[in-house]
Amino acid sequence: MAKKDSGKPDGPKGAQKPLSPLLRVPPGGRVGLAAVRADATPAGPAGKAAGVAATAGMAERLGSLQERLYAASTAGDRRRVLLVLQGMDTSGKGGTVKHVIGLLNPSGCRIKAFKAPTPEERNHPFLWRVRKALPQPGEIGIFDRSHYEDVLIARVRELVPRSQLGGRYAQINRFERSLADDGVTLVKVFLHISYEEQRKRLLERLDNPEKHWKFAPGDIEERSVWPAYQEAYELALERCSTDAAPWFVVPADRKWYRNWAVGKLLLEHLEDIAPQYPKGDFDVEECRARLLAT
Amino acid sequence: MAKKDSGKPDGPKGAQKPLSPLLRVPPGGRVGLAAVRADATPAGPAGKAAGVAATAGMAERLGSLQERLYAASTAGDRRRVLLVLQGMDTSGKGGTVKHVIGLLNPSGCRIKAFKAPTPEERNHPFLWRVRKALPQPGEIGIFDRSHYEDVLIARVRELVPRSQLGGRYAQINRFERSLADDGVTLVKVFLHISYEEQRKRLLERLDNPEKHWKFAPGDIEERSVWPAYQEAYELALERCSTDAAPWFVVPADRKWYRNWAVGKLLLEHLEDIAPQYPKGDFDVEECRARLLAT
Repeated sequence: MAKKDSGKPDGPKGAQKPLSPLLRVPPGGRVGLAAVRADATPAGPAGKAAGVAATAGMAERLGSLQERLYAASTAGDRRRVLLVLQGMDTSGKGGTVKHVIGLLNPSGCRIKAFKAPTPEERNHPFLWRVRKALPQPGEIGIFDRSHYEDVLIARVRELVPRSQLGGRYAQINRFERSLADDGVTLVKVFLHISYEEQRKRLLERLDNPEKHWKFAPGDIEERSVWPAYQEAYELALERCSTDAAPWFVVPADRKWYRNWAVGKLLLEHLEDIAPQYPKGDFDVEECRARLLAT
Repeated sequence: MAKKDSGKPDGPKGAQKPLSPLLRVPPGGRVGLAAVRADATPAGPAGKAAGVAATAGMAERLGSLQERLYAASTAGDRRRVLLVLQGMDTSGKGGTVKHVIGLLNPSGCRIKAFKAPTPEERNHPFLWRVRKALPQPGEIGIFDRSHYEDVLIARVRELVPRSQLGGRYAQINRFERSLADDGVTLVKVFLHISYEEQRKRLLERLDNPEKHWKFAPGDIEERSVWPAYQEAYELALERCSTDAAPWFVVPADRKWYRNWAVGKLLLEHLEDIAPQYPKGDFDVEECRARLLAT
């Protein structure tokens, strides 16, 4: 089964079942988040210890594929990855960057955390700031929040007229399709936590003075409209999970599963890309002789 | 000796001798690179195994200080770090980013690799592209090459008239001083390798097809003017090692020492900054009560 230098794994790992089809939101399908247990561990390792070990065990393969992706770009390959992380407050977007993206070579990662839009950003179409933060060929881009905020908080808090909001889903799909046409593999991940788990995590932030900087009283107001956010997420997942840019729902109440699952999704997509080291366009023997003469 | 929450290390680590004074180029001093052994390991661990372990052992402390630095910025602290990496081809700038910056949380790092200037960049003053890549408050910025190329390759290859070049050292010093005034701790590192080690590393790139993408025949031409580069580095180190922005010479023939030394320099500077978690500006008890009611 293993091919030489194909960028595919060989050995027993190749026999593992892929996770992507299991977590992917089928294009055109309905999404009912209430029916998805946030503490589930579909296809995951047996428990926390095994999960942490399995995630660490992905580092070498991830790093190797990342280096090939980058190397290929130096010879004109425009392919790259964009990992989009969305989820309610405390769902672990930052923790995922730390623990999963932390396994990669930082020089090939382009990370952008989107906050509330600045006045300048508000004066531009909502995709303007997103276009400026895209990964370059060979890079792995990571969005901590994204253009989806413009159909999430924008919907729940009625920041734009409903008519304008309605058009954004199609705009997003066209935008993402155009990215895919340009070599971007989109991996959009919704980190799904439960209402109870969020309370627990917010309380932890309150109870630990070293975590106060992560807390804002506004977080409690956002929580008070939890059902409206779940509905806004369902709509975004239903309308914007496409063949070109699918959404994945990752149960995120267990941090070790969340990290393992996002790492695995990233790994599977990199393996699909199967980037190759480019051939040198120079005469190796001639260069070696010249070098040895120095 | 240990103070609670002071951001300083306690225990035996606090007793270690600092590395920074040992490697720092004294402001106004002369630099003779030929007299500095590139395979030396000043104040370093006893050997490779101990060095690799010591570097890995810094991860937790580095990560903790990095988080405090970032947390402080959310309350208005403008302090940040800018690590500048310079060195001849194959000196290990990329390897340092991978192995040392890879110990940190990638979301707090802003990495910029400077290539040959684009036509647009050439139409601007040489510091223009550098100003756009600076770390924001709370971040650790990393420059893989930097504005120093404009007094290095620019000098050796006579890309600008000598008169114009002469003014750049003072411009750089004013620029870096202004950064320091704005809360930037500059750590400028020259990765010092020997002529023989460079040959060995270039040969390795030629001998391994998976490393061909890192090689260009032009690397041999650059090597042919090695003495001119060493002189250009000596001038840059002499003229631009200031109190506000000192240069450090890191012997880099041994990769494990290079990684350990850069990690240690970063750690010592972060400990000097001693960033603190900010106090929350909210009523913890009131928030807890409101949260428990949800």
